[in-house]
Amino acid sequence: MLNHRAVDRVFQALGDPTRRAIVERLSRGSRSVSDLARPFDITLAAVVQHLQVLEESGLVRTEKIGRVRSCHIEPGGLQLAARWIADRRTGWERCFDRLEALLENRETPTPPPRKRDKR
Amino acid sequence: MLNHRAVDRVFQALGDPTRRAIVERLSRGSRSVSDLARPFDITLAAVVQHLQVLEESGLVRTEKIGRVRSCHIEPGGLQLAARWIADRRTGWERCFDRLEALLENRETPTPPPRKRDKR
Repeated sequence: MLNHRAVDRVFQALGDPTRRAIVERLSRGSRSVSDLARPFDITLAAVVQHLQVLEESGLVRTEKIGRVRSCHIEPGGLQLAARWIADRRTGWERCFDRLEALLENRETPTPPPRKRDKR
Repeated sequence: MLNHRAVDRVFQALGDPTRRAIVERLSRGSRSVSDLARPFDITLAAVVQHLQVLEESGLVRTEKIGRVRSCHIEPGGLQLAARWIADRRTGWERCFDRLEALLENRETPTPPPRKRDKR
């Protein structure tokens, strides 16, 4: 059973293009905050705010080593979102399977009309 | 290349638990708006508003047949989100591969000390 609040936080965090760009950059390797912030056209303070949202949602982990804060991707956050999506896919695939079975049943003539299998 | 605004809209739409519950319900089969709204403890108008957000984000499709508006899952929306996540996974898996290769290189003794392969 997925934790609803945790899934909320992950999807809300990913709904912002700068935060997705941060996740994108970190998924290619860990970086210090200043190195991470370099390509973005926003203040360092704004990047730090986005990082806080990403950390609270479990998508990113930061740690301070000496005077440098290092940022890492936290695969668990994205896996949570991926799992939620995969569960829905299972749902609609089953739905398509039922539809397919129904169409197949229609193609084969059934002796007593309107007879239905109990499912 | 994914359309950033489209990805924004999908993740923002999925950041709400009621909208996710609607997607969940529709992934098990299409429903009329009133049937869809039944288990939710909110007004029909609120459900319709959520449906509008889901429709704009490409997660749900609705169509009016006679007097009934029917709601269907639109797999393309979830696929967009799944693709964005999968692309990040590729990034960090490559990153782990590099780390693994680096660790393997360290384990095999190299004749001249401190020699490094150019990558």
